[in-house]
This record gives sequence, C-alpha cells and structure tokens, in this order.
Amino acid sequence: MTALLDTLRADLPEDAVTVDPALMDNYRYDWARDPAAGVPLAVVRPRTTAEVQATMRWAAANRIPVVPRGAGSGLSGGSSAVAGGIVLSMDRMRSVVIDPASRVAIVEPGALNVEVKAAARAHGLWYPPDPSSFEICSIGGNIATNAGGLCCVKYGVTTDYVLGMDVVLADGAVVRLGGARLKDVAGLSLLKLFVGSEGTLGVVTRAVLRLVPAQKPPSTLVATFGTVAAAAEAVVAITGQLRPAMLELMDGASINAVEDHISMGLDRSAGALLLAQSDVGGAAAVNEIAVIANACKASGAREVFSTDDPAEGEAFAVARRAAFPAIESRGSLMLEDVGVSIPLLPALLAGIEDIAARNDIEIPTVAHAGDGNTHPIVVYNAADPESVARARLAFDEIMALAIALDGTITGEHGVGRLKKDHLPAQLGPEAMALSHRIKDALDPLGILNPGAVL
Amino acid sequence: MTALLDTLRADLPEDAVTVDPALMDNYRYDWARDPAAGVPLAVVRPRTTAEVQATMRWAAANRIPVVPRGAGSGLSGGSSAVAGGIVLSMDRMRSVVIDPASRVAIVEPGALNVEVKAAARAHGLWYPPDPSSFEICSIGGNIATNAGGLCCVKYGVTTDYVLGMDVVLADGAVVRLGGARLKDVAGLSLLKLFVGSEGTLGVVTRAVLRLVPAQKPPSTLVATFGTVAAAAEAVVAITGQLRPAMLELMDGASINAVEDHISMGLDRSAGALLLAQSDVGGAAAVNEIAVIANACKASGAREVFSTDDPAEGEAFAVARRAAFPAIESRGSLMLEDVGVSIPLLPALLAGIEDIAARNDIEIPTVAHAGDGNTHPIVVYNAADPESVARARLAFDEIMALAIALDGTITGEHGVGRLKKDHLPAQLGPEAMALSHRIKDALDPLGILNPGAVL
Ligand SMILES: Cc1cc2nc3c(=O)[nH]c(=O)nc-3n(C[C@H](O)[C@H](O)[C@H](O)COP(=O)(O)OP(=O)(O)OC[C@H]3O[C@@H](n4cnc5c(N)ncnc54)[C@H](O)[C@@H]3O)c2cc1C
Ligand SMILES: Cc1cc2nc3c(=O)[nH]c(=O)nc-3n(C[C@H](O)[C@H](O)[C@H](O)COP(=O)(O)OP(=O)(O)OC[C@H]3O[C@@H](n4cnc5c(N)ncnc54)[C@H](O)[C@@H]3O)c2cc1C
Repeated sequence: MTALLDTLRADLPEDAVTVDPALMDNYRYDWARDPAAGVPLAVVRPRTTAEVQATMRWAAANRIPVVPRGAGSGLSGGSSAVAGGIVLSMDRMRSVVIDPASRVAIVEPGALNVEVKAAARAHGLWYPPDPSSFEICSIGGNIATNAGGLCCVKYGVTTDYVLGMDVVLADGAVVRLGGARLKDVAGLSLLKLFVGSEGTLGVVTRAVLRLVPAQKPPSTLVATFGTVAAAAEAVVAITGQLRPAMLELMDGASINAVEDHISMGLDRSAGALLLAQSDVGGAAAVNEIAVIANACKASGAREVFSTDDPAEGEAFAVARRAAFPAIESRGSLMLEDVGVSIPLLPALLAGIEDIAARNDIEIPTVAHAGDGNTHPIVVYNAADPESVARARLAFDEIMALAIALDGTITGEHGVGRLKKDHLPAQLGPEAMALSHRIKDALDPLGILNPGAVL
Repeated sequence: MTALLDTLRADLPEDAVTVDPALMDNYRYDWARDPAAGVPLAVVRPRTTAEVQATMRWAAANRIPVVPRGAGSGLSGGSSAVAGGIVLSMDRMRSVVIDPASRVAIVEPGALNVEVKAAARAHGLWYPPDPSSFEICSIGGNIATNAGGLCCVKYGVTTDYVLGMDVVLADGAVVRLGGARLKDVAGLSLLKLFVGSEGTLGVVTRAVLRLVPAQKPPSTLVATFGTVAAAAEAVVAITGQLRPAMLELMDGASINAVEDHISMGLDRSAGALLLAQSDVGGAAAVNEIAVIANACKASGAREVFSTDDPAEGEAFAVARRAAFPAIESRGSLMLEDVGVSIPLLPALLAGIEDIAARNDIEIPTVAHAGDGNTHPIVVYNAADPESVARARLAFDEIMALAIALDGTITGEHGVGRLKKDHLPAQLGPEAMALSHRIKDALDPLGILNPGAVL
C-alpha cells in the first residue's frame, strides 16, 4: 500500500495526499452519513486540473476506485468513501471569475454555490439554481447531481445553467465541452450527459455557468391549510394558472420541527403551509399574488398572508430551508426526494401520510411543490432495531409509491448509494442496459464512484 | 436486393415500404438540397413504434444504413438519403395528445411543431420552441437537432421542453426515458443525450413535452440602424439589462430580399434592423420596451418604432421568418448557423461582412441576435463554377471565424453532413474521441445516419 501511494505522491505536490485517519474521517461521509461508508486508502485534494488528471491516471493504472467529492452535503451517499479507494476532494479548487460582458461565471468545482451567487451579485447578475443547501454545497456537486432548489419551479435546474465544462475522464484525459456561447448544437450533447452523472462518468474540474440579470425583489405569500390535501390541491390550481418564482410546501410536522428549532411564529396548528413568491414586480406581481391567494382560498386556506418586503419574504424562505437541520434534531433520518407530475401530488402526499400511519413512524414532509418534488423525511431511532426496520420499510414503500404513480425516486438529490436498489424498478431493464453501455464506454475499468447509481 | 427487401416487407404492413423512384425523390433531400444525397434502397413510413423496431432489427441484421427523417426542413443535410440505405420517414406518426392537468403534450415525432402549438393553445397552454420553420418542421426533427427559434432568447431551446421520450435504438430495442414529471435525476441523463443527436444514436418515436401557461400578448419594437455594427452594439447593451422575449437582427441585404418577396414597408436604406419583443405585460412591458428603445438610441438607431398590437408585432416576425425563402429566390444558398458569446457578436458580424467583401459574394445575414446565433446566407450561382468556389471558401471561412472567436459552427441547425468537416476543429480531438466512444457504444454497426455529424 505504501509503495502504491508513493507512486501517487510522486505525481502530486507534497500536501495533496492525506492518509491521516482523523483527517480522512472528514471526507468519508456526505450529509446522509451512510454507515456503510468505507475507509479510504487516501484523500487527494488537488489544486489543478492537471493534478486531477495525474490522480486518475494513477487510479486507472492501478485499478483503484475514486470517489469525486464536492462539499459533502449530498443526501444520497453519492460521495460516501469506498474502502481502499481514493476520495478526490475538490475543496481546494475554488476560484470564481465573473465575465460580466458574456454574463457567465467561470468556476472551479469546489466553489460553493453561495460564493458564485455572491460574485455574480457584485456585477448585478444572478446565478439562479438555489438548493436549500446553497451555503454548504459546491458547484461541482450541484452539476454532478443536477441540483434543483426553490426557484427552479420558474427558473429551471442546474443543467439549464451549465454552458461549458472541463471533465477529467476515467483514464485521465481531459475534455473541454461547450463554452460561453448561449446556443451550441455542434456534436452530441456530451455536456448534458455529464450533468447529473454523480461522479460516475468523469470529474468536473471547471465550469462555465450562465448568469442572468438580477431577480426583481419578490413578493411573498404564505397560506396555511387544515390538511396537506388542501394545500396540495392549491398547488395544482396555482401551477395551472401561472409560474410562480417559488412554491414550497411544509406539512404540520415540519412546521413544528422548524418552530422548535428557530421560532418564527409559524402556525403550529396548521396541517400544511404553502410559501409562494412572485418576482415579476409592480402591478403584475400584485396580480400574480392575487391569483395565488384566490387559488389558496378556493382550496380552503385558513389564513393567507402576503408581503412585498423582500426581507420578510426571505425570513419565510429561511424557515423552509431550515427544515432538514430542524428535523435532524428529532432523530436519525432517511431522506426521500420523490416526485410526480403535478396533478398526482395530492395522491403522493396522501400516500406518504398513509405509509407513515401504517408503519407507525414520523415522516415530516417538505416539498418543492410547484415541481411535484417532495422530501418526506423518515425519522427513526437508530438505537432501536425495530424502529430502524420500520423506517427502512417506509423508505422503500415511498419510492415504490412514487414509481407506481409514474414518478421518480429522486427529483434532485441523485441516486447515490442509498436509492440505487430502487433505480431498476423506475428505469426498467432497457434503460438500465443502456446506462451500463454508456458507463462501460466511458469508464471501462469501473473505477469512477463504483457502487453509486448503477 | 428484392429478396432483401422482401424480408423487410414481411415484417411491415403492405404500404409501409416504398421503392417507387418518383415517390422516393420526395424523401431524398432536406431543405439544404445537398447534391451529394444518395438514392435510397427504400423509404419506410411506419405508423407505430413496433414498425420502427422491425425496421431497425432488419437493418441491423443486414447492416443497412438508416436515415431517420422528420419533415425534411433541415438545413444541414442531416436527413439526406444515403445510397443503398433506408429513409425512415416519420411522417405518418403524427398524433398529438394534450394532458392539460399535467401540462404536457404527448406527441408522435412526425407531428409538426405548429400542430403541437395549436393543440396546446386550445387548452390555454403554450409550447414555446419556435423555429422560423415551425409550420413545416416536425417535433422529431426539432428534438433530433435541439431546435431553437425566436423566443428561445428568453424561453430556452427544445431540450428544455423534452420531459420524456421513447427511442428505438440501432438494434431495434425500445427505451422509455423520463416522463410527465418536471424534475427527475434518477440515473444518467440519457434523455438529454438523445436530444440533438441528429438521428445518429436512435429514432425518437414518442415524446412528452413540457407546456407552460400561455404567453402574454407581446409588445414589439423595431429599430433601424445605419450599420450592422451599430445594431450589434445595441444587442450587447439590451441583453446586459434584461431578457427580451425576442431579439432578432436583419441586415440590409436581408431586409431588401424580404421586401422584394413580401412588401412590408421595411426601410430598404437601413444597414440593419432589430426586432425585439417584451411579453411581461402591462407597465412592466412599457418599461422593458423603454429600456430596449434607449439602448437602441444610445447605439445610434435611426428610427425606433414600437407597438402594443400583437398582430402588428407578428407581421414583423413574419417578415423576419420570411428571410430564408426570400433569399432563396436570389440564387443557390449555403446556410450558416454560427454563434458566439454576445460581446463577440459585433466582431462576428464585422468578420462576416469582411469575408463577403473579400470573396466578392453576397452574404445576407439574419440572426437570433439575443443568443449570439447568426445565419449568414452565402448566395451563389450554381451554374458558375467560379461562384461556387468562392461561396465554398466563404462558407468555410465563416465557420473558421466562429471557431476563432471561441464560438460554434452551429447554434441550432445541427452539423448534419454539410458542416461535418468543421466539427473536429471546434470540438478538438478529445471531445471527438469521446463522441465516437458514445456512438460506438450505442450503434456499434454504424447503421444510424452514417455520414452525419461524426
Ligand atoms: C440541508 C440540505 C438541504 C438541501 N437542499 C437541496 C435542494 O434544495 N436541492 C438539491 O438539489 N439538493 C439539496 N441538498 C442536497 C445537496 O446539497 C446537493 O445534492 C448538492 O448538489 C451536493 O453538492 P456537494 O458539493 O455537497 O456534493 P457532494 O455531496 O460532495 O457530492 C454529491 C455527488 O456529486 C459528485 N461530485 C461532487 N463533486 C464532483 C465533481 N467535481 N465532479 C464529479 N462529481 C462530483 C459526488 O461523487 C457525489 O456523487 C440539500 C442538502 C442539505 C444538507
Ligand atoms: C425557412 C426555415 C427556417 C428555419 N428556422 C429555424 C430556426 O429558427 N431554428 C432552428 O433550430 N431551425 C430552423 N430551421 C431548420 C429546421 O427546420 C430544423 O432543423 C428542424 O428541427 C428540422 O425538423 P425536420 O422535422 O424538418 O427534420 P429533418 O430535416 O427531417 O431532419 C433533421 C435531423 O433530425 C433527424 N431526425 C428527424 N426526425 C427524427 C426522429 N424521429 N428520430 C431521430 N432523428 C430524427 C434527421 O435524421 C436529421 O438528422 C429552419 C429551416 C427552414 C427551412
């Protein structure tokens, strides 16, 4: 092992390779803390694309598994370390350069989403993709998972903003795809293939991201409902009429968890809450908020509150984003990310309530409701095998339910390792076979993130 | 040959296979009328996915090339027939079903873009992608080329609206990808890989397309400029401030060609014209149009005219869309589709003027200027070898110029057969090698649209 690592060290700067177990522990898990995560051989922290290439060449020559890693905020075990493998952490490759004339950001993959947003804002520009984790996730991870977020109901997901990319392939070759131009159909859509590939096809070492003019200050609406069903019906009604800039749902359990965590004055007795924004500005925004308010009332909203104060609106968004950390304090979690078409949202949410009841387990749910993408969070007691068993059953049942509703097991978090067993049921044998053909063509030795996705 | 075709006929309905030369002639060329198009063995016109599968199974067994064909409006020879091969025309697979609740259209590939738009409109919904050819191009062709259009400066291109797809692979297997859900990251982005693959990876036999609420009636602005350079500067200024719903450019030569073709009262003395739309409605639209007008004036516009009458605005869009047919009446054409990042648009347009002057050839240019995507149209006299030679030189020089400006040889029309020789210069050897790996993995016999793209 030491001899093997010496050959790697020979190709890299002194401080790029870490084998210190305590230090490596920080790179073994993502936010899902998969207990199955292995102990890696080493953590490599490159500063350049060339160093990533050197690592991959060495890994290919020695058939060593490599797990690309961003900021480790993933929720599906996608960057869990593999025993005896390399964790290739991008946390030292963080430069962000804004080209305001071309309205693009040229970024290294380890840059945090929040850093790109801030750099763009300094030029009056906006990078829309906004996972709730935007302060703690990297652009490389966002690209690798095709991350969504709160504004993507109107502004789309990460893939819609990736114009160019440098990728290091499994054999160490580097490929530059796309560039600052907005439209480009020259050749196969390789760029789009790498987005969402969860580190299984290549390592993203540079990205050109599309920026847009700054968003107008949003108007915000909060509506409370007696039941999740009523809120879900309101979502169907709203999205039938317009594209809000945000449309989030929290159920009663998540409202209470957030209130316990950061006291916001949310209505603890509500069965569900909807949080909507309009960013069209002026009279048009007044009109959009009115349409949303009417849809909520027609679906039986108990209370509807709206504000034009962006700071007040952001406070509600902060509450929504706090849901995961808040619920985390209630026990161990299994995080779902199931999605369906909008008209089936009420059926999905009703089914989740039913699964919680049948398995006698707490499943608070938040949702990017405007996209039909929900996050039921199975809370369990890791010390109680019975609770673990029920949680696992509920976790599986929820994915089976989504598939039965012609939906997806993951709308934005990725398959990673934790949802891998359910992927074939969703995709079917033909799409699985096709995925393997692509994977084998690009990574014939199977060294890139083995055990994830496929 | 007859024996071979008999085995194909055995698997298909009576009228699906055509060998009549006169009839086949209608399926040999796309709109670029590439003289190199071959004489096919037969034209197959399936009615079902199963018939497409039967054709591909037969082709694979006999190693016969297959050229998938939509409506033949392509501008890059992508659906030119291959000598001794099959033209697989989708013109009988045209059903369009709208699911208003899910806001998707479920369409067969031969349905025309205009038919999908009309069906959506009947439900108060909108399918945005709008190539100028929307009345004569098919959805399958749009998907295979990742077609753009006039509104994509704000609303994105075809790939942004494809949620699901059935594809028949080279070996006849059918794969269903995606579905009516808006967000789905389960597994590799196979769906996106097929979009823009120009018939080289599979045959699209069904698509699920995202629809959005109907567009608000647009306000339209037309500005004339003394020079193309001034108009290009205005484009840079406008897109730095907002996202118009349309931002098209016509140079003096194309204005005059259109005026000759359909008299619109456009200013024949103008060096260039910009056509912009805002669709945010009400006071916000007034504001956007004012921003655009000011940017035009600051860039030296001679005249600025605006209207809130959608019909009047559409008349200008019709004039813009008429540019290709209008210019066609002036001679034989070589159609370019080069694109650059917005700040380099003035340099690209200046370079094109220079190439026209140096080669003493007419190159009228229209552009989806807001995307940096231009269509210089090289007009030549096919009967004069000298003119042909100069046209060919200019055609090549324009693509080389785009590549030198870090741009693309094709923003939306695809590489097809006519731009194939220039693809390696744009992509570079690594991306070419990667493309071949994907192609080989999916079509190991190389029977799908051979000679196109790669
Ligand atoms: C509180 C909380 C809220 C969240 N909310 C959202 C949300 O709203 N929307 C959403 O989409 N996600 C959300 N997430 C999930 C997570 O933040 C995203 O998946 C994020 O994109 C992961 O980025 P990361 O840098 O942390 O990646 P990691 O967790 O380190 O890795 C994620 C995957 O990407 C791969 N990867 C990372 N970098 C690279 C690279 N440079 N090249 C190739 N592969 C790479 C890894 O191998 C792994 O498969 C949330 C997470 C938390 C903890
Ligand atoms: C006047 C005019 C204006 C135009 N304006 C625009 C514009 O603004 N924007 C734009 O993007 N394009 C424009 N085009 C180009 C053209 O209309 C588009 O490329 C269109 O998408 C082609 O569709 P089609 O059905 O005619 O395809 P075809 O020309 O038949 O085929 C195009 C390509 O798609 C493949 N293909 C077709 N159907 C399938 C299928 N079902 N499965 C797999 N592969 C398939 C073919 O093999 C070929 O490679 C214009 C063309 C004309 C004539």
